[in-house]
Amino acid sequence: MNRYMDVHDGFVGVTQTQLEAAHQRDLDVQAGEGVSFDQAWLDPDSGKVFCLSSGPSKEAIMRVHALAGHPTTEVYELRVAVS
Amino acid sequence: MNRYMDVHDGFVGVTQTQLEAAHQRDLDVQAGEGVSFDQAWLDPDSGKVFCLSSGPSKEAIMRVHALAGHPTTEVYELRVAVS
Repeated sequence: MNRYMDVHDGFVGVTQTQLEAAHQRDLDVQAGEGVSFDQAWLDPDSGKVFCLSSGPSKEAIMRVHALAGHPTTEVYELRVAVS
Repeated sequence: MNRYMDVHDGFVGVTQTQLEAAHQRDLDVQAGEGVSFDQAWLDPDSGKVFCLSSGPSKEAIMRVHALAGHPTTEVYELRVAVS
């Protein structure tokens, strides 16, 4: 399993409830792709969303987000991390 | 305290050891600004780095990164989050 960060634009003014609903749509379809969406963060002023996930490939991440109705092509494989 | 994600470009080919050293430079100077850098992730192919932090303002985050030698102006306040 690899770790990924993906980025979405256009979520200006989105609320906590709306982000939770969008995230739930990912959770509803992710098992079919072997993906786990773990955390998501939103800056509602700029409309940027960052999603942290694990899965087998960038393409799997993109397919889950597309199926959930919020496609993105901006996906980064996080081969290095510190905490 | 607010939560932030900031983004850096240009870290192509950077290693685990090098990212740890860069992160340590943040840790060494963050207290003066009331900032806490908590996690950082790197895609060494694209050179993108994502840093998750908490602190009093975007400007404080930018000052710590600048003092540590890796300035960025791309900082997002994460007022909404799900996990």
